[in-house]
Amino acid sequence: MKPASTVARAPTPALVIDETVLDANIARMADFTARAGLSLRPHVKTHKSIEIARRQLAAGAVGITVATLSEALIFSEAGCTDIFVAYPLWLDETKAEMLGRVLEHSSVLVGVDSLEGAVQIAGTGLGQTGRLTVLIEIDSGHHRSGVLPAEAGVLARAVRDAGLEVTGVFTFPGHSYSPATRQSAAQDEHRALSVAVASLADQGIDAHVVSGGSTPSLEFTEPSVLTEVRPGVYVFGDAQQWELGTIEPGTIALTAIATVVSRSPGHLILDAGSKVLGADRGAYSTGYGRLLDYPDARISALSEHHATVTGVALERGARVRVVPNHSCAAVNLADEYLVASPDGSARWWPVNARGRNR
Amino acid sequence: MKPASTVARAPTPALVIDETVLDANIARMADFTARAGLSLRPHVKTHKSIEIARRQLAAGAVGITVATLSEALIFSEAGCTDIFVAYPLWLDETKAEMLGRVLEHSSVLVGVDSLEGAVQIAGTGLGQTGRLTVLIEIDSGHHRSGVLPAEAGVLARAVRDAGLEVTGVFTFPGHSYSPATRQSAAQDEHRALSVAVASLADQGIDAHVVSGGSTPSLEFTEPSVLTEVRPGVYVFGDAQQWELGTIEPGTIALTAIATVVSRSPGHLILDAGSKVLGADRGAYSTGYGRLLDYPDARISALSEHHATVTGVALERGARVRVVPNHSCAAVNLADEYLVASPDGSARWWPVNARGRNR
Repeated sequence: MKPASTVARAPTPALVIDETVLDANIARMADFTARAGLSLRPHVKTHKSIEIARRQLAAGAVGITVATLSEALIFSEAGCTDIFVAYPLWLDETKAEMLGRVLEHSSVLVGVDSLEGAVQIAGTGLGQTGRLTVLIEIDSGHHRSGVLPAEAGVLARAVRDAGLEVTGVFTFPGHSYSPATRQSAAQDEHRALSVAVASLADQGIDAHVVSGGSTPSLEFTEPSVLTEVRPGVYVFGDAQQWELGTIEPGTIALTAIATVVSRSPGHLILDAGSKVLGADRGAYSTGYGRLLDYPDARISALSEHHATVTGVALERGARVRVVPNHSCAAVNLADEYLVASPDGSARWWPVNARGRNR
Repeated sequence: MKPASTVARAPTPALVIDETVLDANIARMADFTARAGLSLRPHVKTHKSIEIARRQLAAGAVGITVATLSEALIFSEAGCTDIFVAYPLWLDETKAEMLGRVLEHSSVLVGVDSLEGAVQIAGTGLGQTGRLTVLIEIDSGHHRSGVLPAEAGVLARAVRDAGLEVTGVFTFPGHSYSPATRQSAAQDEHRALSVAVASLADQGIDAHVVSGGSTPSLEFTEPSVLTEVRPGVYVFGDAQQWELGTIEPGTIALTAIATVVSRSPGHLILDAGSKVLGADRGAYSTGYGRLLDYPDARISALSEHHATVTGVALERGARVRVVPNHSCAAVNLADEYLVASPDGSARWWPVNARGRNR
């Protein structure tokens, strides 16, 4: 589906990037972190795009964050030389081989939240390359992976004794994904990382890297302990961030263009369903996505290939711009982006790390 | 990631098909529909696999159902000669070109729920091929697309006057997706289709095809008006069907193998998140999927790359079989299946129509 010189003639459904807004989002975050004295290591799982990663690095990012080794490999081979795999890896044979290939091109930070996981990594001998270092993962209140802050030092010491270099700590304050907890999650993060850094110091280990941040909590971040942040969604925005109050709709760079294919007195049906938009829906969400140009409209139901829209009346064949609830989920479903330039032209960019989820 | 001769050595997360269970599911549905005197036209959006479609056709299916024209094209080029696009298509230029290519190989039924949509189709001239016919879509209570049953005849007459052949009606009783409504949705479907068939007869149009069915409502189907059914999920099953009471867990053919990567006193974390399992969660679901071998376990939270599991204690590095909530959504995220044969070997099958969602 390569030929499409304009968004208006592109087949629907399709993901569209507003390039002007994208570049403004990249510049704004670079400026925010620079003023706060924080390193920026964007999470590229949001966009899975080499071109966008390059723009983030050109704007001053110190490196990138990925979720999987197969993502790491794509970006490593594309020239990203400083990669953090922010995940508690369990290095079986296949994954060890992948990590080895990433280390051929790049320095790699990996997350560790258990001695067992670290011993597996150390057993590969990849620590001997001098390019592999560990950050200890801290649970700052999201209660997913990570150790308690006060336990970080003992784990860090054991990981070092197992033969791996430990250079700091990281956390993901994911409990920020609620309008009521954005600020308190940032405070939790600050407290947890402060305790963790002190816990490492008790074991004689300096935390050179103290990494945190989530898009909803970022504006409340207290930089005194953090050295870097890893936001992802800021490049595109999405309906979650819009409804959380993190962003204004004018800063949304990613939409799915969709066509009205059916209508009844109470609703209309778009040809973008959960197989294009993703099915994410937070407890605070008002629906399954929003319409960028019709803020009163709501997506009241979502099937695999149908979005049911209320609150706006349009003719069959009309096209709309749908803002997915969660841009990372929508991107994960796409092969390519249609990129709309300021001059009115459009071109396709691949989702380079599509499917790289292991 | 081609080399993997056994499931135990395959990288995680990955989708695995139990071939024995798959074949039993295909045979059981073929038998059920044959005994009920119904044609079987399976929906291949569930599996997007040419090999599985071939097995369904070999077991007696009269043709296949797809959701999009790009799916139709994949299966048409693979030799499926009788395809129903069960969707209210809006044929813009790109889609008209796709439909033309499908018609080179196959007879095509398309769904229509408006005269505007039919006029667009007729305007392409593709009705002149003699291989394109229309089924009128009926709303039987799901309230998505489709016309009211009593309005079907007038629309059918207008579609015929616009130059397209109308051969019947179809509906999707999707309101069957709740334990309390499985039977009543089947009754709604029967009533709606009966009214629609009479409405066509009033206009002098015979409904040769009366197509319906959903996996949860199927066992309650009243065949007296239906001529064919289009179930999809039955080939694999999933946690939704398990929790709806439609199936027993022993008939589940599709799982995602995943590795325990982290644990805490209250839960463990698997490396299969929403980017592999999908984020679907019905109001009746007990979580974000189930563990096939640990029926008491629950997936209490799901991030992009983490499943939080309670109710079972396992070591890091252990592997489990996760039953996705919705198999169609999980398949849509995968490039390939690892197919486990009765003899203990395993091989990869492609998800041929991956990404074909427009």
